[in-house]
Amino acid sequence: MCGIVAYVGHREAAPLVLKGLKRLEYRGYDSSGIALLNGDGLKVYKKKGKVADLEGILHDKVLHATVGIGHTRWATHGEPNDVNAHPHQSNGHRLAIIHNGIIENYNTIKQSLINKGYTFQSQTDTEVLVNFIEEIQKSKNCGTPEAVRIALQEVVGAYAIVVMDAENPDQLVAARKGSPLVIGIGENEYFFASDATPIIEYTKDVVYLDDLEVAVVNKDGLNITNLENVKKDPFIQKVELELEAIEKGGFDHFMLKEIFEQPKSIADCLRGRLLPEEALIQLGGIHNNLSKLAKAKRIVFVACGTSWHAGLVGEYLFEELARINVEVEYASEFRYRNPIIKEGDFIIAISQSGETADTMAALELAKSKGAIILGVCNVVGSSISRITDEGVYTHAGPEIGVASTKAFTAQVTVLTLMALATAKAKGTITDDVFRRIIFELDAIPAKVAEILKKSEEIKDISKLFTFAQNFIFLGRGLNFPVALEGALKLKEISYIHAEGYPAAEMKHGPIALIDEDMPVVFIATKDSSYEKVVSNIQEVKARKGRVIAIVSEGDVDVKKMVDFAIEIPNTHEILQPLLTAIPLQLLSYYIAVLRGRNVDQPRNLAKSVTVE
Amino acid sequence: MCGIVAYVGHREAAPLVLKGLKRLEYRGYDSSGIALLNGDGLKVYKKKGKVADLEGILHDKVLHATVGIGHTRWATHGEPNDVNAHPHQSNGHRLAIIHNGIIENYNTIKQSLINKGYTFQSQTDTEVLVNFIEEIQKSKNCGTPEAVRIALQEVVGAYAIVVMDAENPDQLVAARKGSPLVIGIGENEYFFASDATPIIEYTKDVVYLDDLEVAVVNKDGLNITNLENVKKDPFIQKVELELEAIEKGGFDHFMLKEIFEQPKSIADCLRGRLLPEEALIQLGGIHNNLSKLAKAKRIVFVACGTSWHAGLVGEYLFEELARINVEVEYASEFRYRNPIIKEGDFIIAISQSGETADTMAALELAKSKGAIILGVCNVVGSSISRITDEGVYTHAGPEIGVASTKAFTAQVTVLTLMALATAKAKGTITDDVFRRIIFELDAIPAKVAEILKKSEEIKDISKLFTFAQNFIFLGRGLNFPVALEGALKLKEISYIHAEGYPAAEMKHGPIALIDEDMPVVFIATKDSSYEKVVSNIQEVKARKGRVIAIVSEGDVDVKKMVDFAIEIPNTHEILQPLLTAIPLQLLSYYIAVLRGRNVDQPRNLAKSVTVE
Repeated sequence: MCGIVAYVGHREAAPLVLKGLKRLEYRGYDSSGIALLNGDGLKVYKKKGKVADLEGILHDKVLHATVGIGHTRWATHGEPNDVNAHPHQSNGHRLAIIHNGIIENYNTIKQSLINKGYTFQSQTDTEVLVNFIEEIQKSKNCGTPEAVRIALQEVVGAYAIVVMDAENPDQLVAARKGSPLVIGIGENEYFFASDATPIIEYTKDVVYLDDLEVAVVNKDGLNITNLENVKKDPFIQKVELELEAIEKGGFDHFMLKEIFEQPKSIADCLRGRLLPEEALIQLGGIHNNLSKLAKAKRIVFVACGTSWHAGLVGEYLFEELARINVEVEYASEFRYRNPIIKEGDFIIAISQSGETADTMAALELAKSKGAIILGVCNVVGSSISRITDEGVYTHAGPEIGVASTKAFTAQVTVLTLMALATAKAKGTITDDVFRRIIFELDAIPAKVAEILKKSEEIKDISKLFTFAQNFIFLGRGLNFPVALEGALKLKEISYIHAEGYPAAEMKHGPIALIDEDMPVVFIATKDSSYEKVVSNIQEVKARKGRVIAIVSEGDVDVKKMVDFAIEIPNTHEILQPLLTAIPLQLLSYYIAVLRGRNVDQPRNLAKSVTVE
Repeated sequence: MCGIVAYVGHREAAPLVLKGLKRLEYRGYDSSGIALLNGDGLKVYKKKGKVADLEGILHDKVLHATVGIGHTRWATHGEPNDVNAHPHQSNGHRLAIIHNGIIENYNTIKQSLINKGYTFQSQTDTEVLVNFIEEIQKSKNCGTPEAVRIALQEVVGAYAIVVMDAENPDQLVAARKGSPLVIGIGENEYFFASDATPIIEYTKDVVYLDDLEVAVVNKDGLNITNLENVKKDPFIQKVELELEAIEKGGFDHFMLKEIFEQPKSIADCLRGRLLPEEALIQLGGIHNNLSKLAKAKRIVFVACGTSWHAGLVGEYLFEELARINVEVEYASEFRYRNPIIKEGDFIIAISQSGETADTMAALELAKSKGAIILGVCNVVGSSISRITDEGVYTHAGPEIGVASTKAFTAQVTVLTLMALATAKAKGTITDDVFRRIIFELDAIPAKVAEILKKSEEIKDISKLFTFAQNFIFLGRGLNFPVALEGALKLKEISYIHAEGYPAAEMKHGPIALIDEDMPVVFIATKDSSYEKVVSNIQEVKARKGRVIAIVSEGDVDVKKMVDFAIEIPNTHEILQPLLTAIPLQLLSYYIAVLRGRNVDQPRNLAKSVTVE
């Protein structure tokens, strides 16, 4: 994520950029910064925290400038602090850059720059990129636009960047690949931003930069080329959206936006880690512990809420693939239970915020008992990521909706990568199966996008269940935790009493609840327990329950039995939770909206539970 | 349990006894038998199965007799088969006995009889008793009544017995300790039975025999003495109850009867195993594996439904007391998951019926992988008890109500004994703590009886929640599984959507459900998480939830906060589930009855789930 804003023209740049950053704070808010260019040269101000914290250090500064770039950060490389905040400057102090995205091969480039004498203040990939551009500028003796083009040809990763050049104070150079960038076109003035919100009060004319395009603005106007310097004609559009809608990317709620971001957030999570062509998984975050993990006698996941459900998926993954005994503990229970920790045990905390109080306390206890502790967090530099020995970030970007969606699928993605890497290191998976799974994993983002196309169909089903009083969600194996998560979503945002169960447990009690008023959601995809789930569906239908089933593409049997079937693409069995979770998120969302609930801020709930 | 019937008089004994046995089948139905005395001598017929199966082998027999004794069995010693069925005969064929109860020191007596040349056909304690009486008769040269009195002075255990003597065909000798026995008094005829149901169509005049009393009937009438032969005056009462009510022991439903049986069923479960004065726990059922269990790296409980909840309590007990890692698996999930079984792992199945299909299949899988498998079952000789290496029976007697109550507390009792014995063998418990816990465990039946006295109070609370649509049950630590079980009970018999959660997890989602319409049951007894639970109660009260709390005697803080508080006696923290479960059973029962539900046979549910 991260939000970027830039301006060149005739207005005061500083207030304009700061106002724009505030509009973009939904994209990240762990630190922010601004670079201004005027007669006195290039000046950079950065501060950990919200944009308001940045303003706090600017009140006594002379900020006059008509060129400025600004950034509000969601950390991916390096913890959130003043130094790691953007903009970053080159060693020669000629260039400043703001960047949204991840440069995957930054470490290789960094080494070659260090060999040439470059030094680095921060741990960021971004500082590497700006120095790389400066190095090309010097070695090729070329202008900034040409240096940016050459640099980006070498770069692997995703980016939206804006580069400011102290020697060309009227010029800004921007480029994108994978991360959004909008250019606003005014009267002799230009605006750049991650979305149109910082721009629309000045101009409605915008150009959406395409992947692998470089834009240069200066007194000659706007010039767009590709990385090979072939000129492209800018396509100018009118922005018609309301402010609020734009912040939500055109979606009614952050939750829906985040559901729809999942093809991207899962891809971001896989980026640089899953290398299908080399049949390789690289997890820098647990590099030092991978061989120990492969030898672990026991893994304990500690988590709360949605993250606990991700842990249950992780249990199936690690047991099945890496043949390691796994326990999944409620953090709140684990910590008060005098847990038995033995040498070689791994405790893995899962937390979106990385601040969950019970999970933190559980980790501190485990650490004091000598366990190796790892973290799976979304927020870089969070308390849990700092206390753990190592960890893997989920890179899902900030999640604003209180009910977690993209963070869940990113957690499951990370756990899948970890289980696969562990299995590979341990030799419990054949090369053939490994290749097949990572090939399928690579295809998951596109398959999630396929499911999202069914949102209208799911919305239509939701209309029929808007006034349901209760819901039961059932699944088996890897899809049992997804059933729990589906029930939790509905509970959280619609306040319908929904409950998840392993499908076969239903007949040991909960089946007493089944009658014609009880909707039952079955995850009944084609997998090793398909036939058993079919029997369970028949048991519910025999008691007149109304059944919605998530089925595999091409399913015949279940579709004949149930009231509603939602088809999803086929994938490898162990990857199914990444797909089956999506229709359940949409179902909950639409039911809650139809009930008139405040989906993004459901009653009684807080996004990050930092109390016990 | 077991049901006994006997007759001496002028009628045909066989049809009368068989009819009586059918009335008593609720007390046990794994095998039955009858002994008849006439001119041809003493004849015994026995058959595995229901009383109807016994009738099947009698149709071509000459059954004329005016003295008869009969028995329908609920196995405790020895599997249910023809040989182990009652009546049992003495080696000299002079005596036949029917017995309800357990002779704890039968093995010692058996050895001394074997030394004297006695042989035994069955594995029962009962056959030992009848030969012991015969041996005394011979050695002391006394009559049957005197021999019975002397024998019973040596016996440790519980019993209701009737003894038939081939040399005194008009005489029957009966005695009781701990097990019920009713004597019906007619015109020159006498009836004996476990309850009055087999008697009331012939006479309403009955005597309830007291503990340690011996009754002799013959042509001189009824003579009652104590074991020291001091004469007692029989107190004759009129039976006023309806047939159906008597089968249910005066309770409206089997479920309520079984709830109220818990002081006895827990005591039965402890009998001969818990020896507080010697500070000893003896579990013959796992004698061969106890030292291995103490060295176990991992225990996995496999179970379904209520038994799964007992397993969760077992997890806390074994981890806390014996410091062994425990996992609790849904049997249905375990078996389809390619579980990781290592050498020295113990798999312990928990099942009331011992026939649960998923649990059986899980055990077979574990056994095929070389695990040591143990069983905790209620039904002796059931499939699970036969497939396991060893096991401990719960001795709760037959459970007729579909919603399990006394079987649950008996399972928890057995698991407590097993965890304590393992901890003792492993040395993870100090003698002092061990003594303290077994002293407290010994007091549990009386404390359960104390709680049952509050049934009217709980009924009054139930009236206010009869029409609730939903319920949440919350607890922490050992009381978290009790909360799950409390929710399951309500769900099963009232069809109210009730759900259990660990109390601290509430704020990670379920708290969204809380409003003034949501009753929340908290288990908030004084234990190590009391303060935390108090905070959780405040969180619910702040959202206007209506709270019923189970609190410890003398509680002040919680009582001030909540809408209703039910006080229960104090006990050692690890024994709390045996007490906290009781008020939740009563709450569910009364709410279901007030809603007009068929409590004993709730819709859609079967008592023993023998399908997958």
